[in-house]
Amino acid sequence: MADVKSDIEIARAAKKKPILEIGAKLGIPAEHLLPYGHDKAKISAEFIAEQKGKKNGKLILVTAINPTPAGEGKTTTTVGLGDGLNRIGKKAITCIREASLGPCFGVKGGAAGGGYAQVVPMEDMNLHFTGDFHAITSAHNLLSALIDNHIYWGNEQNIDIRRIAWRRVMDMNDRALRHIVGSLGGVANGYPRETGFDITVASEVMAILCLSMDLKDLEKRLGNIIIGYRRDKSPVFARDIKADGAMTVLLKDAMQPNLVQTLENNPAFVHGGPFANIAHGCNSVVATTTALKLADYVVTEAGFGADLGAEKFFDIKCRKAGLKPDAAVIVATVRAMKMNGGIKKDELGKENIEAVRKGCANLGRHVQNVKKFGVPVVVAINHFTSDTDAEIQAVKDFVATLGAEAILCKHWAEGSAGIEPLARKVVELAESGLSQFSPLYPDEMPLFQKIETIAKDIYHAGEVIADKSVRDQLRIWEEQGYGNLPVCMAKTQYSFSTDPNLRGAPSGHTVPVREVRLSAGAGFVVVITGEIMTMPGLPKVPSSEKIFLNEQGYIEGLF
Amino acid sequence: MADVKSDIEIARAAKKKPILEIGAKLGIPAEHLLPYGHDKAKISAEFIAEQKGKKNGKLILVTAINPTPAGEGKTTTTVGLGDGLNRIGKKAITCIREASLGPCFGVKGGAAGGGYAQVVPMEDMNLHFTGDFHAITSAHNLLSALIDNHIYWGNEQNIDIRRIAWRRVMDMNDRALRHIVGSLGGVANGYPRETGFDITVASEVMAILCLSMDLKDLEKRLGNIIIGYRRDKSPVFARDIKADGAMTVLLKDAMQPNLVQTLENNPAFVHGGPFANIAHGCNSVVATTTALKLADYVVTEAGFGADLGAEKFFDIKCRKAGLKPDAAVIVATVRAMKMNGGIKKDELGKENIEAVRKGCANLGRHVQNVKKFGVPVVVAINHFTSDTDAEIQAVKDFVATLGAEAILCKHWAEGSAGIEPLARKVVELAESGLSQFSPLYPDEMPLFQKIETIAKDIYHAGEVIADKSVRDQLRIWEEQGYGNLPVCMAKTQYSFSTDPNLRGAPSGHTVPVREVRLSAGAGFVVVITGEIMTMPGLPKVPSSEKIFLNEQGYIEGLF
Repeated sequence: MADVKSDIEIARAAKKKPILEIGAKLGIPAEHLLPYGHDKAKISAEFIAEQKGKKNGKLILVTAINPTPAGEGKTTTTVGLGDGLNRIGKKAITCIREASLGPCFGVKGGAAGGGYAQVVPMEDMNLHFTGDFHAITSAHNLLSALIDNHIYWGNEQNIDIRRIAWRRVMDMNDRALRHIVGSLGGVANGYPRETGFDITVASEVMAILCLSMDLKDLEKRLGNIIIGYRRDKSPVFARDIKADGAMTVLLKDAMQPNLVQTLENNPAFVHGGPFANIAHGCNSVVATTTALKLADYVVTEAGFGADLGAEKFFDIKCRKAGLKPDAAVIVATVRAMKMNGGIKKDELGKENIEAVRKGCANLGRHVQNVKKFGVPVVVAINHFTSDTDAEIQAVKDFVATLGAEAILCKHWAEGSAGIEPLARKVVELAESGLSQFSPLYPDEMPLFQKIETIAKDIYHAGEVIADKSVRDQLRIWEEQGYGNLPVCMAKTQYSFSTDPNLRGAPSGHTVPVREVRLSAGAGFVVVITGEIMTMPGLPKVPSSEKIFLNEQGYIEGLF
Repeated sequence: MADVKSDIEIARAAKKKPILEIGAKLGIPAEHLLPYGHDKAKISAEFIAEQKGKKNGKLILVTAINPTPAGEGKTTTTVGLGDGLNRIGKKAITCIREASLGPCFGVKGGAAGGGYAQVVPMEDMNLHFTGDFHAITSAHNLLSALIDNHIYWGNEQNIDIRRIAWRRVMDMNDRALRHIVGSLGGVANGYPRETGFDITVASEVMAILCLSMDLKDLEKRLGNIIIGYRRDKSPVFARDIKADGAMTVLLKDAMQPNLVQTLENNPAFVHGGPFANIAHGCNSVVATTTALKLADYVVTEAGFGADLGAEKFFDIKCRKAGLKPDAAVIVATVRAMKMNGGIKKDELGKENIEAVRKGCANLGRHVQNVKKFGVPVVVAINHFTSDTDAEIQAVKDFVATLGAEAILCKHWAEGSAGIEPLARKVVELAESGLSQFSPLYPDEMPLFQKIETIAKDIYHAGEVIADKSVRDQLRIWEEQGYGNLPVCMAKTQYSFSTDPNLRGAPSGHTVPVREVRLSAGAGFVVVITGEIMTMPGLPKVPSSEKIFLNEQGYIEGLF
């Protein structure tokens, strides 16, 4: 297999078109594209505002089974499907999330797709890109600094320093910052207190940016952030310490979607944060809604698995932005089915139809879950060269028993030509008018009941447990008028349960709620379950050890 | 004075030329300019490498008196002089530093000049610009995370966790992060230990980026960073934990100088970090040396006052990069002379020749200091409308007694037309061949003696005091082979002494050395004196409170 190229080699060999040309295909005039290099551009707020009132294209969600170390290829399939739709004559835009630097130096694969279904420039995308995440980090930490500064200079708002709800963020996997005591060292450094850092994607500022319709909406939401509470438990808002204006200024450019291209020179909007395990993890509302005005088809991703990604896409993003998805694709691989069926990674090369059948339980659960939202589903089998025909047929047969279809996709090796059948099926589903989208629960359901609904209907848990302090906190927020918000579950991506080792389709398990956090600006309540961390760590041998510039000045080791 | 426009209004009304056109004037082909928007571009490493061996233009340093709340206008004069030299027919490039976000939300004025002597786009320059500081922050904090991660997974290098020398950084004024205890919260978060954050400009990575000749040099220096010591006090380097490659990848684009333009459409290279009070605070070596290949005249700044800025420019940057400055300009204002003469800010409007004369002692000291480096000096009086003729004459008369000339400059109000006389004088000095530059002390002088030399010859201190632990530390570094490095003083910018309230030209004071830090990658020893902080705080009413986007989408309050 000497001719199998790495993702980065394929990306480096890409024949990119000037980004202005890609924009022109979508009808975006050059003066509304702010270039970052020759292959990236931000789309102006003016152009976006002008699109209002135009007809929307069809919205297709790509989500996946629970991830395994075997790899699924959700982003790869999202990009491939966008190319495939363009290939069969539909004007399609791919809308994916930006990459976080943290996992880039840890273990995770790239965020730009893979093989012949990639978005380029992949190196930039996996590093600083257009600086959006840095801007979010700055805006978040400006607010943090202003809070401690407000207290330092007399605490006019009477913030209870034991009840500060706003932490700091860094776009890095750094476990040492999870829990710190700050303001040590004497009078000049303020009042010592416990606090900590989350990774930037988990920042409420990230969620606000992803859910805001425009800069005005962004500023209002930033002002609504609750930074802490007074002794009487009344909330103190970011606007109370006059932080919202400067934060908006810092986010002015980050708010604009980034236009790049696929290897096949089709447009992609890369905007918003990943990590649906700890955040809501969707492409930004402004990117998706703008794409819908410019294309017949918009393909967007939500992951990791559909239990987290699709649920939040439907219950948070679509609910809040009034979006109505027309079809959903669930990505699965034969290898991942085998791992879900109990096979170890080093035995994946051997045919094992029984294990595939056993592992299909995980896929089946996701198919049924997505149907609960009223959206028609198709399964994409992302092909690996080691898959046998019998194994593939086993997946297809299983999916057929659910009243759905599973289609083999070879976009990784062949680009759009390999994914034409899926593209045609997606068009058939989207144009059937079958979609009857509605969120899982109504706004007016009490917060704890929302958590239980997701846990029972989506995770198939037996019960949700939480300390009295957590339940009391939810009740106080309901009394303060936040009861109508959706919940944003933070849970391991590896299982329907809170135990990352429990593969397949477990039932009757217990979901322990460890902590709840109110994101009043973003408009949801974060529910932290099990042992999920909002600041990841690095592995024993971080991938950063193998990343370097080679003699030609090219980046090596970045995937 | 209804027609006096604010800096931001003037900047917003600028008739900018496309940045490719500015580059073309310098002979930089479009393919070697990486655009960031239409008005900023990075210059490629290939183009820079091709310039080697070409003849250098003249190098002019602009520095200043000790800053006062009255404002001096060092950057304004640097930009004005660049425009002035272009006006009189010299091909000139202005080389200034990038702005830090921290003070932008605190109290400081912009870093892009002022009035009709500005670099544009000033809003971008004072915010994220091309992301260089964010890249430095990321590279620094990646190393920090890798250190704690190395210890967490078994500490193969046997780093003594009490002797970790590498902190974290943030581009923010945040006193709460100066001193923290990290890795709290149990086994999963590592080994609790004391640490803290500096502001990004104080990062050794910033200094390394500013002093490196190219990416290879950068990588080598990053590898040379000492992250801590073992129990036997032997140093552990960044390369020992394989951090240098990934850090270099993060800094790949940040290493390239940024091309922008002045209001008069002359080229400016904006690259490297400010803050000569805690860092070395110079425009990057790669920007300055590249500019010298492309222009007859390169005007660069070093500040705050010449006691910090010029000393480090000469003793660190010029020494290390083999640069030979041809002339120096010291910026002073009548108002600052009055404040140095004991007048309060609210009384500056009244003519007071006696106070001007008294305050000139500060200016005189700087003139004599710069002469010690063998560089010819001219004083620029940056004109304020409230200055009286008699006050201006008093400054001129005083400077004449030192065998130098003081020239009134009206670039703030008039642009290049107002600074022609200074430009002509600078050309006269530079072309006279009078410059006999040499650093203040030789490489081989012991470290403590270097500190004493600067303290006595430049600050006019009576003595330097330091605890035994500080002296022992310096001696150990000498034994380890670091004795030949220059020292980088961290001292208040407001006085020749370590007491910020001591204006004028104090003598015989004591310089207390609080701490020393070895920057083995950058190639200097940081000497922290008095109460200077490497992480600033915000004032009671931070300027961020007045920064916002107005109805037209323009930034208000950013200066």
